[in-house]
Amino acid sequence: MWKMTSGGIAKPQGFLAAGTHAGFKKTKLDLALITCEEATVAGVFTQNAFAASPVKLTKKHIASGKIKALIVNSGNANACNGQLGDQDALRTAELVAHKLGINPDEVAVSSTGVIGVPLNMWAMAFGIEDIAVKLSKEGGRDAASAIMTTDTYPKEVTIECNLDGITYTISGIAKGSGMIHPNMATMLAFITTDWPLERDLLQTILKEIADETFNAISVDGDTSTNDMCLVLSSNELPSPSKNKIEIFKTGLKKVMSTLAKAIVLDGEGATKLLKITVKNALSIQDAKFAAKAIGHSPLVKTAFFGEDANWGRIICALGYSGCTVEPNKTDLYFEKFQVVKGGRGTGVSDLELMPILKSREIEIVVDLNLGSKEYTFQTTDFSYDYVKINGNYRS
Amino acid sequence: MWKMTSGGIAKPQGFLAAGTHAGFKKTKLDLALITCEEATVAGVFTQNAFAASPVKLTKKHIASGKIKALIVNSGNANACNGQLGDQDALRTAELVAHKLGINPDEVAVSSTGVIGVPLNMWAMAFGIEDIAVKLSKEGGRDAASAIMTTDTYPKEVTIECNLDGITYTISGIAKGSGMIHPNMATMLAFITTDWPLERDLLQTILKEIADETFNAISVDGDTSTNDMCLVLSSNELPSPSKNKIEIFKTGLKKVMSTLAKAIVLDGEGATKLLKITVKNALSIQDAKFAAKAIGHSPLVKTAFFGEDANWGRIICALGYSGCTVEPNKTDLYFEKFQVVKGGRGTGVSDLELMPILKSREIEIVVDLNLGSKEYTFQTTDFSYDYVKINGNYRS
Repeated sequence: MWKMTSGGIAKPQGFLAAGTHAGFKKTKLDLALITCEEATVAGVFTQNAFAASPVKLTKKHIASGKIKALIVNSGNANACNGQLGDQDALRTAELVAHKLGINPDEVAVSSTGVIGVPLNMWAMAFGIEDIAVKLSKEGGRDAASAIMTTDTYPKEVTIECNLDGITYTISGIAKGSGMIHPNMATMLAFITTDWPLERDLLQTILKEIADETFNAISVDGDTSTNDMCLVLSSNELPSPSKNKIEIFKTGLKKVMSTLAKAIVLDGEGATKLLKITVKNALSIQDAKFAAKAIGHSPLVKTAFFGEDANWGRIICALGYSGCTVEPNKTDLYFEKFQVVKGGRGTGVSDLELMPILKSREIEIVVDLNLGSKEYTFQTTDFSYDYVKINGNYRS
Repeated sequence: MWKMTSGGIAKPQGFLAAGTHAGFKKTKLDLALITCEEATVAGVFTQNAFAASPVKLTKKHIASGKIKALIVNSGNANACNGQLGDQDALRTAELVAHKLGINPDEVAVSSTGVIGVPLNMWAMAFGIEDIAVKLSKEGGRDAASAIMTTDTYPKEVTIECNLDGITYTISGIAKGSGMIHPNMATMLAFITTDWPLERDLLQTILKEIADETFNAISVDGDTSTNDMCLVLSSNELPSPSKNKIEIFKTGLKKVMSTLAKAIVLDGEGATKLLKITVKNALSIQDAKFAAKAIGHSPLVKTAFFGEDANWGRIICALGYSGCTVEPNKTDLYFEKFQVVKGGRGTGVSDLELMPILKSREIEIVVDLNLGSKEYTFQTTDFSYDYVKINGNYRS
């Protein structure tokens, strides 16, 4: 149905995009702008109590369900800057609005980077002057690059689908790396589409898919002050015939899960993707607790980095997760190999497991044999480079 | 009142101790034995759902309040070994009982090491034959060494106090390193005293002090299958006059907090001790959530390793901890320097903070300015060596 294509965030009809270097970072692209005549918008945001100024402002500005521009800077999070931060976020929206001839409350603002340093508003002002004239249908790659922080490559995905002779497109960009965690941790994702949508339906769909994609990934368990995911529809194309909404959902999920996986694989210093499934739990809550306790355990994560079949650490994490377990019913699998049966090691040899431990993606399945609920959580290992990158992020 | 002295775990009157090499580890001491004519005993244990066989057995054996021997092996946790593990733990108690001429239910058994490998019962049988003849008043250091796993040095502390012409002694040994966490994570601690005590009172005191010491430390957030802390009193000396119990509590807390701090400082690859205090919270629960979220955050821990004043990560962790906060009332201090006032950076320079960031012990204080409750949590930074040690533990 949906197939991958190229073209980036401005590919869907009605959108323009650009990226530029404004000066928040030393030399790299650090300001992105996406515009649309009038987009329907939905969003999900960080639940951190110290939500940054742009998060608070954007929540307000998308309340009407419509925006015309989205401005994103990297290099400075504009978080923990008090009233000054709130003023600077608003001023950013005003500068964009003035330049584009729209209203400030039609502008969404997003920031990512260092916390607690006031935003350089000179850089912002000149950057906005500069970026507005760069807007184009081809500006998607620059926009994707401009939102990066410790990411090692831009993350963008575009898919299209033909219905009744019309080609609909969904495209997304994201930044992730460090601090990737459920509940929208230090993650920005912006998605555009020309599939026409009502605001309320779009919000419902976004929330549902975010729970299954962005909220089910983690690199290190921290949740940031700045995360947001926005979906914009230009409504440029005619509505597909009724009952086609499931097709849109499939497409949106494809875009969001592709971005989520790219974020995890680009996790700071990650060498392996760990896909942890807990099945046959008494409740979804139990399965979530267990999968996340395993996925957040530094001992589990370092063991996989070391390619060590130390399954005892997984059992340990399961045991303290708060999930209901019956030790003598608990099974554990590394891919096709059963390493624990009824709470007891099966004696499968390290030699047999070595090809699995050496692979870049590893599937770990805990079977609780108690109920029927299941949850999957994706995360990475912890490497030397994780410590290196995060011990030196600001310098 | 109490002063530090030497002598080790067999120093209190009525105790003997020994350590030997049984063969669970390649060459190092790996079996410890502590005996007493008849000791009053109290214990706290891991809450992990996969509690190891020796934990389950020892809970049963101390239920009467009396034991005569404690056997501890390192190198093998005897966890996740199913019924065989239960049999082996019981058989260990039987072997000790037979050798010493006591009953199996008068023996406490403890194990630490790799999970999921059956215990080598030949090594255990020969080791018990060997260690029983080594028991002495001077065997404390060997016992302290024999319970180590990834610890880099044995942890023992002995204190004494003179009351009405009588010298009372409390002595403790512990093993920690990796997986140190609240709720008794991969931590063994054994404490002996000649201060006479009733079982129920001793249990109450132990529980209370464990909450303030061993349960308030963490290296990496994992909780193990094998943790236990036992306190044994030989009841050899006459009871001090009434109302002296507070003196005993002070002494026990001194021993346990000294061991707890030693465990944290010997945390796997730790270069710094982080003492995180959250004060003026609305509730103790809030203060605990906040202190632990900060103390478990890999981003906070790597930043301190990198000597980077990245206080935004502390604010981040506070924000997602679930603790009630009012951002514009939140203050943060690194030692004497205020880095955040009312949720906003104070602009204190990295240069000013450098001497603090370079020190081996760093005090971090979050003042919520909302209530009056306070909680302190001790943890370490995350270093390259943390990843190295834990990626290669079994090999």
